[in-house]
Amino acid sequence: MTKKRIAIDMDEVMADSIARFQEWYGRDFQLELTLEALHGKNPRDVVAPEHQPALRAYPNAEGFFRDLPVIKDSQRVIKALSERYELFIATAAMEFPNSFLDKYQWLQKHFDFIPWPNYVFCGDKSILNANYLIDDNAYNFEHFRGEGLLFDAPHNALVTGYRRVHGWQEVADILL
Amino acid sequence: MTKKRIAIDMDEVMADSIARFQEWYGRDFQLELTLEALHGKNPRDVVAPEHQPALRAYPNAEGFFRDLPVIKDSQRVIKALSERYELFIATAAMEFPNSFLDKYQWLQKHFDFIPWPNYVFCGDKSILNANYLIDDNAYNFEHFRGEGLLFDAPHNALVTGYRRVHGWQEVADILL
Repeated sequence: MTKKRIAIDMDEVMADSIARFQEWYGRDFQLELTLEALHGKNPRDVVAPEHQPALRAYPNAEGFFRDLPVIKDSQRVIKALSERYELFIATAAMEFPNSFLDKYQWLQKHFDFIPWPNYVFCGDKSILNANYLIDDNAYNFEHFRGEGLLFDAPHNALVTGYRRVHGWQEVADILL
Repeated sequence: MTKKRIAIDMDEVMADSIARFQEWYGRDFQLELTLEALHGKNPRDVVAPEHQPALRAYPNAEGFFRDLPVIKDSQRVIKALSERYELFIATAAMEFPNSFLDKYQWLQKHFDFIPWPNYVFCGDKSILNANYLIDDNAYNFEHFRGEGLLFDAPHNALVTGYRRVHGWQEVADILL
């Protein structure tokens, strides 16, 4: 029997990009971007209007995606999943063309058991031929042919209509 | 009715990477890499053994994929296809991590009518959810869920078992 296939998003699912927003916002404006403030919102929508252009620019800036912290339990659970499923890492890198190499190197460093042919840098995730997609952005499920698992993140706290997973242990409970 | 979807490979289908091999090989070794010599073979297999490491390294070198010539008729036919089909550009960029930005910028320059969310940089093309794949490497069709069209190129001249298209006008004749 061929293995079922899981596509996994990177940002806020494997890599903690919120941490980088918090770090840089603190550095540039001496203000704290709290998880409470981010509940149900994107970082750019919770700051003062005059700070919004800076926040919009962050993901395109050199180094934004470099050395991001690894999301809790992701290495352990994804390693276990890799033994039962065929895994692809599917990240919307096209939106941030400066992120390609950083994302590639981050995956090589933190998830060296996933071979590079299984990386997919894309824009529209409806192109993925997989059974499951684990993603923090519900719009990626709309035209996806498999089943979506909404990975809990501050910005999607108010989204309904999808199966939500609160962290990697819950993914393990469902898929392993 | 939703449009059918075509995935299109870049190298030797949209972009003439053979031309860059010929250019650099001439520059480095003062020898000509002829299309006759390349019949049924990859560039690295037709040169002297002592030149092979250089040829293997070319695609990873800075600038290899920059400003490649556009394959004949590709702009005209792909533009026409874009009105009848949903198009994705699927390139095996993962093999050459230094190529990401060059490929992105090349597409923006020469195929500006294809939006960036429809670019896919991948390794294993079995991840593509599309009806057709136009590609010069037959191995990409093996686990592809749709129909493959083998785009004629010197290296694949001896490959059989797939529907072969000799240039973009023939793609137009089939798909338009």
